[in-house]
Amino acid sequence: MNYQALFEQIKKKRSFLCVGLDSDIKKIPAHLLNTEDPVFEFNKAIVDATAEFTVAYKPNIAFYECLGAKGWISLEKTVNYIKENYSDIFLIADAKRGDIGNTSKMYASAFLENMPFDSITVAPYMGEDSVTPFLEYDNKWVILLALTSNKGAFDLQFFEQNNQRLFERVLEKSQEWGTKENMMYVVGATKAEMLGDIRKIVPEHFLLVPGVGAQGGSLQEVAKYGMNNACGLLVNSSRGIIFADSSEKFAEAAKEESRKLQEEMELLLKEKSLI
Amino acid sequence: MNYQALFEQIKKKRSFLCVGLDSDIKKIPAHLLNTEDPVFEFNKAIVDATAEFTVAYKPNIAFYECLGAKGWISLEKTVNYIKENYSDIFLIADAKRGDIGNTSKMYASAFLENMPFDSITVAPYMGEDSVTPFLEYDNKWVILLALTSNKGAFDLQFFEQNNQRLFERVLEKSQEWGTKENMMYVVGATKAEMLGDIRKIVPEHFLLVPGVGAQGGSLQEVAKYGMNNACGLLVNSSRGIIFADSSEKFAEAAKEESRKLQEEMELLLKEKSLI
Repeated sequence: MNYQALFEQIKKKRSFLCVGLDSDIKKIPAHLLNTEDPVFEFNKAIVDATAEFTVAYKPNIAFYECLGAKGWISLEKTVNYIKENYSDIFLIADAKRGDIGNTSKMYASAFLENMPFDSITVAPYMGEDSVTPFLEYDNKWVILLALTSNKGAFDLQFFEQNNQRLFERVLEKSQEWGTKENMMYVVGATKAEMLGDIRKIVPEHFLLVPGVGAQGGSLQEVAKYGMNNACGLLVNSSRGIIFADSSEKFAEAAKEESRKLQEEMELLLKEKSLI
Repeated sequence: MNYQALFEQIKKKRSFLCVGLDSDIKKIPAHLLNTEDPVFEFNKAIVDATAEFTVAYKPNIAFYECLGAKGWISLEKTVNYIKENYSDIFLIADAKRGDIGNTSKMYASAFLENMPFDSITVAPYMGEDSVTPFLEYDNKWVILLALTSNKGAFDLQFFEQNNQRLFERVLEKSQEWGTKENMMYVVGATKAEMLGDIRKIVPEHFLLVPGVGAQGGSLQEVAKYGMNNACGLLVNSSRGIIFADSSEKFAEAAKEESRKLQEEMELLLKEKSLI
């Protein structure tokens, strides 16, 4: 999916919601545990309930990897199901990978070739040759970690050289590697006030913004400082949607939570005259 | 395995060699491709041929992940085979993971609980809470990326604040998270001359040193600047050993290459009067 097509989806759905499929097997409703593939059944129900309000899904790979080969199968089934049934959805592998070029190439093949992901989150620490192998696919995206939503973000990301902080250096340096057509950045909603500084460096790029909901970030603040003329935002909610209810009504509850976020997002898009 | 036990293994085997099981299915000998699990058969043969010269094995997870669930099974079989047959070997999951605390915990469970890895490589960009979940296992280790062997290392790792470079900041800051008993650092052999600076900050810690061989680093230089009184080094070679030969004699060639490195290492350990 390219930049313009993503913006069209946002306008069509009046939403810039990304639902995080952090489908922890210890938290999925008990009645699903007797099925052959509980994680897939859970994801399928969540996707069917929330797709109309959602432009992107983001499975965090850790929750699948911790189940070994079985988890990998659940992941493959999930992303294939989404692409087959909701072909306009943008799919993000939240994998935070990154290695020497030779090896990043293998990770790129795992997620962007062997599975139908549109994008993958990548850690920037190892620099250019760890990132560029992921950029060699048409209409696929790297989503580079810039300013993360967690407390540990303060340990290194604010390291500063000549009044430039490390996350700003990541934004600036990576302009040499990709464009707004194949690169996005992770910016945590818990640091929404920093979005102003970030937009000075990457005014046009899309930003993937986690941290709304369970982690405490505010959607209004994110839109205020981060929204641009193509929306430029994918705001993620994981636990707040998928684990809104742990009974047999979990999918209805997820639908309700995603609808609420979509409605808020519609207002914000209207305020900005984008729809 | 703890610090002292690892040093004992090094003295016993007169080697600080780590063999990287970057078992790219496109490069393994053709005659293995008809077996049920070519990657496992390849690894098994490599391990049986090289174990006497080796203190550690390091599968890079990318080479398994790109094969999907099947690759995951090959990985599990490989590490289980090593632990069952060579219980004194130190096992490194070269995964370069790291995420918010909640999620890093899942990765820790994948590699340090569900599989018998002794350690996992972790990317430092997201800071403390992305690293500490991996430290909650007795006698298991985090191997934190500090100064990597690739060209892209220069993009961010030398970013400098008050005469401290980012990789030095990682070394210093992470002293608050772990100790020499549960944390090591990745330092590329291609930057061996930097080992002097690194030893000023972490004189006692073990360092995992990739980049000897195919990437061009020198073992002598690494030992000169990096060896300490407990050796303090695990030097990795991947392609130079496992793909030394692509015929049916691949395992013998791997044995020969690992023997050569072990012999060089024995001399270096003797020079330092450690054996």
